[in-house]
Amino acid sequence: MKFHYPNGKKYVQTNHSPKKSNAKQISYSNRGMTLEEDINETNQYYLAHQKAVIHKKPTPVQIVDVHYPTRSAAVIKEAYFKQPSTTDYNGVYKSRYIDFEAKETKNKTSFPLQNFHEHQIRHMESVHMQDGITFVLLRFSLSEEVYLLPFGPLKHYWDRMESGGRKSIKKQEIEQEGFRIPLGLHPRVDYLKIVHQIYF
Amino acid sequence: MKFHYPNGKKYVQTNHSPKKSNAKQISYSNRGMTLEEDINETNQYYLAHQKAVIHKKPTPVQIVDVHYPTRSAAVIKEAYFKQPSTTDYNGVYKSRYIDFEAKETKNKTSFPLQNFHEHQIRHMESVHMQDGITFVLLRFSLSEEVYLLPFGPLKHYWDRMESGGRKSIKKQEIEQEGFRIPLGLHPRVDYLKIVHQIYF
Repeated sequence: MKFHYPNGKKYVQTNHSPKKSNAKQISYSNRGMTLEEDINETNQYYLAHQKAVIHKKPTPVQIVDVHYPTRSAAVIKEAYFKQPSTTDYNGVYKSRYIDFEAKETKNKTSFPLQNFHEHQIRHMESVHMQDGITFVLLRFSLSEEVYLLPFGPLKHYWDRMESGGRKSIKKQEIEQEGFRIPLGLHPRVDYLKIVHQIYF
Repeated sequence: MKFHYPNGKKYVQTNHSPKKSNAKQISYSNRGMTLEEDINETNQYYLAHQKAVIHKKPTPVQIVDVHYPTRSAAVIKEAYFKQPSTTDYNGVYKSRYIDFEAKETKNKTSFPLQNFHEHQIRHMESVHMQDGITFVLLRFSLSEEVYLLPFGPLKHYWDRMESGGRKSIKKQEIEQEGFRIPLGLHPRVDYLKIVHQIYF
């Protein structure tokens, strides 16, 4: 999980980055892959095999100052990370709209809801009301378990927090209401298989 | 139409920007609105009235250097515009996936195909094969006419160019194979009405 927001945390560009920092290799799973990398690989697989067209949205940036050196590319000299107003991933599968967010935690027994922002929940709610397919992919990094949790139960636990309840979802609750995604080699996180079972 | 690419052209940030440059007010339509602004307003209308959830994707940026001043937001000090690999707009309407690109020209009698990039055509083709709804919105700035042209005819004219034919679509062809979108006040460019007629 990466925070691309102005929250004081370091930003690490992962797309197409051949180098991996040691910190990441230690802190994430044995395979040294983040959930984002796994999903990107999976989406490329889907695209190449004409199973779906799903992309990660670019990180939203507020551009303040751009320089135009003669005969070379424009250089952005001052910009700031903006809070995204939607989820990170969307696209199409068998004519239906797919929309999801992917997050990971190092916790073992629960998933903190602070991983999501209120406007993301509101966005997913709007998508849900348009009959779009919307869910979250949750990864427990230490055990490498990935779950698909549909918007319905996510909203339930979000509302529980809003009305003063716990600020996380118990892992047990995710096991009961979510769907475990077996990890593969190619694609690595075949979430469409689960999507097909649940929504089609 | 804005070029966000490293092509030497000036970049103008339009989202949520209260100021408008004089240049833009002169060069675009009487109302001083660009197609992008009209579509953003229309999408906000659709969202507020629960008709659809459609957003413009952020401009893709390759971030090279980020500074972290103490106790304040991270500042991007060096970044470059990347070529987008998809279209600019996507979302959901009545469970179906919607995907389009919007462009305008100051030409009066034809629409130059150089407004599109090959990877965008390829992206739209992939969406089309997934039964997604994909099209372009074309605006003739001087006459303020906006047309929806489905991917089918767009691909036909693209292929005509690829095989040595003309590098633009005649306005007459757009009038015949596209659908004129009447301009309104709220929403300004009610393209969903046409989408509903064609695809539902």
